[in-house]
Amino acid sequence: MASRSSAIAAVALEREPRGTRRKRETRAKLLSAALRLMAERGAEGVTVSEITEAADVGFGSFYNHFESKDAIYRALVDTVFDEFADWLDAVLKDVNDPAEVVSASVRHTILRAKREPVWGLFLIREGFSPDAIDRGLGLRLLRDIKKGLAAERFADGDVFMYFVAVSGTVLASIAATSSIAHRFSTKDLPERCAATVLQTLGVERTEADEIARRPLPSSKRSYA
Amino acid sequence: MASRSSAIAAVALEREPRGTRRKRETRAKLLSAALRLMAERGAEGVTVSEITEAADVGFGSFYNHFESKDAIYRALVDTVFDEFADWLDAVLKDVNDPAEVVSASVRHTILRAKREPVWGLFLIREGFSPDAIDRGLGLRLLRDIKKGLAAERFADGDVFMYFVAVSGTVLASIAATSSIAHRFSTKDLPERCAATVLQTLGVERTEADEIARRPLPSSKRSYA
Repeated sequence: MASRSSAIAAVALEREPRGTRRKRETRAKLLSAALRLMAERGAEGVTVSEITEAADVGFGSFYNHFESKDAIYRALVDTVFDEFADWLDAVLKDVNDPAEVVSASVRHTILRAKREPVWGLFLIREGFSPDAIDRGLGLRLLRDIKKGLAAERFADGDVFMYFVAVSGTVLASIAATSSIAHRFSTKDLPERCAATVLQTLGVERTEADEIARRPLPSSKRSYA
Repeated sequence: MASRSSAIAAVALEREPRGTRRKRETRAKLLSAALRLMAERGAEGVTVSEITEAADVGFGSFYNHFESKDAIYRALVDTVFDEFADWLDAVLKDVNDPAEVVSASVRHTILRAKREPVWGLFLIREGFSPDAIDRGLGLRLLRDIKKGLAAERFADGDVFMYFVAVSGTVLASIAATSSIAHRFSTKDLPERCAATVLQTLGVERTEADEIARRPLPSSKRSYA
């Protein structure tokens, strides 16, 4: 009896992790398929059945993981905007110069978009959506601009326009990486974009170039 | 005989313009429906039958006006990017200061997007597409930036990044008009955007503000 019940327990122990792992894998497949489809067509242009088909997962099992299409969309936004913002905060926690914080954030964003083009595409598409400014990455940028203004590191100016200009410049840089490469070189784009953004904020050109080329604080820890 | 043939001629004369007018109206309906649908979903997300249905025009008659979906898309791009660029050139032909040319172009673009939101939406969507820099509006901006650099009106810098930053800032401003209005005021957005763009190009803040608020050269002539 003892041996039989312990055998059952062992099976149960083994089965539980296996089930958990499979569940996690299915969830990851669904998220990855949704990210790709929504980056291409926008959230409204994609159906749940297209997501399950692309993920090679049964239609019904979608609902074991997400309540609705809106729920998986929100999970993606958390990953793309919020977890990345937290990662940036951790990586840049020891940087005190607000200009360097903005510069390093810009560089990391463009670097990641280059490494993960679908992530970049999703960022472009959703970065212009109504509540982007209220999400992790938007709130963080707004906070960093305000810090730089308070410290008189940036030219006294229009907080809202600064926010619009910095985010627009970063998104347009990401879009340009893939597209206009045939006419203009995109070499060192992260640094060139950071320098331009600092000039937008009123930092003088030579200093902006120097800040944008400082060693980039990073982390071996993955983004999410 | 004479009176009969002249009656026929009169009918023919009358019929011809009516046919022409109807043809022009159908074409305008198709263009307007395509603009709306493609601004919402992107060119690839729209079919010819959706365009004819939205325009309330028979499917077959589409092909009396356009060879293909691609052809109507190209006609839209001509209107949105090229004809507007020509209009700007005509309106600003007497402005000699490159900074004022960029400022006035930015203001007119944002003003038109506000007046015609579908036009603005199409501009946002297609402005990030691969060959935007080769189209009328992109080429024109590139030319104006180069003029300002040659005249040492702008800080010696990165032509490509200047192009990316100015266009990104304008597109993000248009996107922001509708979206973030609840948290930040978008009053005087055309002027505020122009001032920020000039600062990006290295014009000092006070001067940028002054240029952005100069009387705006305009025209009663319609854009197209």
